[in-house]
Amino acid sequence: MDKMTTFQPGLNGVIAAETKLSYLDVEAEEIVIRGYDLIELAEKQQYIDLIQLLLHGRLPTLSEQQELEAALKEEAHLSDSLVEILGKLPKGTHPMDALRTGISALAGYDKNLGERINLEKTVLRLLAKIPAITAGSYHLLHQQSIVDPDPSLSYSANFLYRLTGRTPDEQEAAIFDQSLMVYSEHEMPNSTFTARVIASTNSDLYGALTGAVASLKGNLHGGANEAVMHMLLEGGSVEGFRRLLLDKLSRKEKVMGFGHRVYMKKMDPRAALMKEALRKLAAEKDREDLLACCEAGEELMKEEKGLYPNLDYYAAPVYYLLGIPIDLYTPIFFAARTLGICAHVTEQYADNKLFRPRVHYTGPRGLHP
Amino acid sequence: MDKMTTFQPGLNGVIAAETKLSYLDVEAEEIVIRGYDLIELAEKQQYIDLIQLLLHGRLPTLSEQQELEAALKEEAHLSDSLVEILGKLPKGTHPMDALRTGISALAGYDKNLGERINLEKTVLRLLAKIPAITAGSYHLLHQQSIVDPDPSLSYSANFLYRLTGRTPDEQEAAIFDQSLMVYSEHEMPNSTFTARVIASTNSDLYGALTGAVASLKGNLHGGANEAVMHMLLEGGSVEGFRRLLLDKLSRKEKVMGFGHRVYMKKMDPRAALMKEALRKLAAEKDREDLLACCEAGEELMKEEKGLYPNLDYYAAPVYYLLGIPIDLYTPIFFAARTLGICAHVTEQYADNKLFRPRVHYTGPRGLHP
Repeated sequence: MDKMTTFQPGLNGVIAAETKLSYLDVEAEEIVIRGYDLIELAEKQQYIDLIQLLLHGRLPTLSEQQELEAALKEEAHLSDSLVEILGKLPKGTHPMDALRTGISALAGYDKNLGERINLEKTVLRLLAKIPAITAGSYHLLHQQSIVDPDPSLSYSANFLYRLTGRTPDEQEAAIFDQSLMVYSEHEMPNSTFTARVIASTNSDLYGALTGAVASLKGNLHGGANEAVMHMLLEGGSVEGFRRLLLDKLSRKEKVMGFGHRVYMKKMDPRAALMKEALRKLAAEKDREDLLACCEAGEELMKEEKGLYPNLDYYAAPVYYLLGIPIDLYTPIFFAARTLGICAHVTEQYADNKLFRPRVHYTGPRGLHP
Repeated sequence: MDKMTTFQPGLNGVIAAETKLSYLDVEAEEIVIRGYDLIELAEKQQYIDLIQLLLHGRLPTLSEQQELEAALKEEAHLSDSLVEILGKLPKGTHPMDALRTGISALAGYDKNLGERINLEKTVLRLLAKIPAITAGSYHLLHQQSIVDPDPSLSYSANFLYRLTGRTPDEQEAAIFDQSLMVYSEHEMPNSTFTARVIASTNSDLYGALTGAVASLKGNLHGGANEAVMHMLLEGGSVEGFRRLLLDKLSRKEKVMGFGHRVYMKKMDPRAALMKEALRKLAAEKDREDLLACCEAGEELMKEEKGLYPNLDYYAAPVYYLLGIPIDLYTPIFFAARTLGICAHVTEQYADNKLFRPRVHYTGPRGLHP
């Protein structure tokens, strides 16, 4: 009656879902998003286009794009009452925990909570509110006032503005938008899997996202972009950074920002895109030294370990030059990934089967109290 | 390079973990907990004994039992600041969402958050706080004052007291304790799986439990105990309840409280135990009519559909006669299951591999923007 398969720790290589959303084609070295190459999308489109693409399978028309912007703007404010809740969190709260609590509490304000007919409305609401919670909870935890949205700015520019309190220039806004695109969707990492597992009980989007934040908080999943930036700052110079990496390697420590469990042998194509963005920002801000550090680290890790940078390695210095506090890099990753996760939950609902695996029991039997 | 297995929707029959904690032995019709039969444990031991058993693999000595009680008592209060946060949640917040937000926010008060060396201390803290959040958030959402713990009462009696505001008699406390035992652990349901998936990123216990609450909220997982009680009240009498069930069957609606995806063909042994508890409570409270309704429903579902009651079917009227508000049945299920989930997370940490399955991509390829 139980046709058990062999136990694969971590479900390594096990297919857990059918999806039309995305696929890491390891052989072709392509991140496929709804049939498109993610890198090509990130070069030619905007994050807001990916919303329509991931939810509906096609890129938006100009008027659809405008409607989306308008819908997101309408939901961009945080209610006073949610701000009060976030403001009462203990000051030592981890930014990912603040984000998780904010999303969890937000459910109570949704009059149509869990109604499938309003699913897309809820997705847009979350895409508008999660950047606001990300920025707002950070400022509240640091006793700073929160930055209200500027209606004249686009979705991504507004997000960056609310993070830093400074209106970004065109290049900064475009680069930040591109970073959100490359973080937006990536097949079935742990956080997306968590969200689908939760959604399979018919639980709502808020719950699925709450679990996904918890997953991305773990240092085997998110957090690498922050760790990379701390290493770069600690290294301080090309020589210092090289020494720091060599020290880590000699102590057999894991170096964050390199390699990926499911990935190409060469450089993560998203990292290459962010490296190009870093080159532009470094020129704008006269910080070629930071680019030089990153390149030296890339070179060293290739020579010493045959490892290539992943997205986090080059997203970190990009966010740094955009003036974003380091603690926010992983919450921003989550805010961008909200899109992919919501698309996966929507897909899970459409053809659902409750996730309920079995175990291999290795304990004793036949004991009596 | 990818040795993909066949896709099993919902990971049906797929082994997702090795565990020494528990096993549903479908052939022997036994729920194995650390080698013991759960039903025998529930007849002879107390919930507090199961804490030690699940965490350490053996039943406690008398002095260990006393130490556990003392440790739990020490953490039984909710801080004023957490009470304020819970008090600010919108009044329409779902009780499971309030519980989720409370657990999520609680992380910010833990000075040693995520430190593995303090893991058992964190487990005990959560086992003490989650009943407090369950009861407290309910009262706050209903503009009632919260019930502070009574230090003269045992762990379970205190939980029941804080739910109802009334000191339970000996039989009530014993029956409630037994209900917590039978809800405490049950192999790998979706919520436990969710918690292990999250924990596999090295995320902390608070995060794993937050995701698990979200999972149990879904109506394909938790919520059945509440649905059963609403049906019993709507039926109102043996005849009314029979009619209600027959109506549901004729409309091909799912009747909650019967059957289980991974289960014995006969009656859930936990349901049999709760039926016995219901018999005692019905006698004490002169509510044999409620027992008669349940028995009539059991009989009817066996005859009409060949289905047998599961735990939720008999736990619901038990909680009703204990004077517990119906909205709290699923949060209580979660509070009891906190133990099993914490044990699973502890086990996951001890021999961890990141959960990262793959997908079968069924969308288009080769599109260009």
